[in-house]
Amino acid sequence: MSLVVVGSIAFDSIRTPYGEQQEILGGAATFFSVTASWFTPVSVVAVVGEDFGDAQFKVFRDRGIDTTGVEQVSGRTFRWKGEYRGDMNQAHTLDTQLNVFEKFVPKVPAAYLSSEFLFLANIDPLLQLNVRRSFSGLKASGLDTMNYWIQGMPEELKKVLATVDVLLINDGEARMLSGQSHLKKAAECIRQFGPRVVVIKRGEHGATLFGDSIFTVPAFPLDDVFDPTGAGDTFAGGFMGHLARTGDLSDANLRRCAVYGSVMGSFAVEEFGVGRLARLTPAEIESRYRAIKQLTHFDA
Amino acid sequence: MSLVVVGSIAFDSIRTPYGEQQEILGGAATFFSVTASWFTPVSVVAVVGEDFGDAQFKVFRDRGIDTTGVEQVSGRTFRWKGEYRGDMNQAHTLDTQLNVFEKFVPKVPAAYLSSEFLFLANIDPLLQLNVRRSFSGLKASGLDTMNYWIQGMPEELKKVLATVDVLLINDGEARMLSGQSHLKKAAECIRQFGPRVVVIKRGEHGATLFGDSIFTVPAFPLDDVFDPTGAGDTFAGGFMGHLARTGDLSDANLRRCAVYGSVMGSFAVEEFGVGRLARLTPAEIESRYRAIKQLTHFDA
Repeated sequence: MSLVVVGSIAFDSIRTPYGEQQEILGGAATFFSVTASWFTPVSVVAVVGEDFGDAQFKVFRDRGIDTTGVEQVSGRTFRWKGEYRGDMNQAHTLDTQLNVFEKFVPKVPAAYLSSEFLFLANIDPLLQLNVRRSFSGLKASGLDTMNYWIQGMPEELKKVLATVDVLLINDGEARMLSGQSHLKKAAECIRQFGPRVVVIKRGEHGATLFGDSIFTVPAFPLDDVFDPTGAGDTFAGGFMGHLARTGDLSDANLRRCAVYGSVMGSFAVEEFGVGRLARLTPAEIESRYRAIKQLTHFDA
Repeated sequence: MSLVVVGSIAFDSIRTPYGEQQEILGGAATFFSVTASWFTPVSVVAVVGEDFGDAQFKVFRDRGIDTTGVEQVSGRTFRWKGEYRGDMNQAHTLDTQLNVFEKFVPKVPAAYLSSEFLFLANIDPLLQLNVRRSFSGLKASGLDTMNYWIQGMPEELKKVLATVDVLLINDGEARMLSGQSHLKKAAECIRQFGPRVVVIKRGEHGATLFGDSIFTVPAFPLDDVFDPTGAGDTFAGGFMGHLARTGDLSDANLRRCAVYGSVMGSFAVEEFGVGRLARLTPAEIESRYRAIKQLTHFDA
């Protein structure tokens, strides 16, 4: 079944202990859609500037992603510059230029509105709410957010939380949103706001899903983490991608969604940008899924 | 098969967000032996002072633990005072009085020397090495250590590492011992020093075993963590206890050892001291083992 994502497209400049890249294609909607495209048809709603060219659109096109909803306006595309030092779980932002993203008002093409699955990546919760309300036949919707909105627009955020099925959020954000330092209590508190499933991403420690049951999945132990940028959006892309592919909201399948999230996140960090994600094969994805099974299996 | 532990017995004074306790029975050998006693016969080598009375010995006796090797000398028992604030993974030491523990020289009773399993809890690596050398028929030995010895006696520590099968260590110590920030590389480095199995404990994030394969086990998600003191020693007690009970060093069984470590660690933190561990039932242990299976299970 088809999946729509609304979020940012950006040019990222990134320095990690492994090297440096200037103005490479990034943004939550990019990582999410390239990832989810391995599972299900994906359509994107985003905004880019005049500097966004065919080379960038080709990345989406090559993965069969519908970019009808990617509006191109005058001005420059959103730019983010960041650095990772010793702790690869922590990005240090060096520069943010919102550019055309500052006045972004998502325009959802009519053809998208019959989609059964929607992911609202991290943007202003009022915009998320408007987009959410324009869809009437969803089987499930997912949401991401960040500290900036949790602190600055908590009431608006709670309104959109009341309308979604799955919240995918990192541990620090979950603690801030709930006011609870203990993650199980944080998840229980957030579920009261609306989402019946809360997935707390814990970077190198994996992720925990709180729904009808609790499920933990580890991060795949790689030899090297080259660039963590986009790993959370990639996790969401794997999670929502498998959910939309199967249309199965059962507890057993939500667990598989979390494993696919971890699988895809592990590929994301193997290289800068979306390069690794763009040239995956289904066999590689299934092989790493089995590797995570092997990593966690023990006899009862 | 029988299991010997060498380590500290202490009186702990602890403050956590949940309350405060003065001079309760603690120490690595205490947490380890009370835990392992649920799996296999356990004997302790330790030192206590004149202030250590029948009420304390009774805790060991009630669990069938052999305390022939607990030497009682003139002076006061080792005392530790600590506090946990927001982050329950981090103990803040307020006071340490080594007392009789300062001059501790382990004296292993002759009857202990035929044991097949040995655990060297965190003490001076030269003492660990002497104890290790006095056993000649071991099926497997385990070791713990801490930052103090890693920084202060690295060469002596490497000598004892070369003689043991399993190192159980926390993530910060693994990074310090190896000089590698990435845990997989840290474990690979430490395995070069000798132990064929390295278990890295990650507090609320669970533990990862590096041996013939890599295995991760989560921490059991409790509603409340009352007191994390002794959780690492308890993990080791569950791990070594199940290993000694089965005598099975296969990869599949080492995974079960790690799960029992996590199971027992989760009980340890439910109350101050060893109270919860002392009044467990085998059924409770097996029930939580199955709960961790449920927490991590997904269909392949």
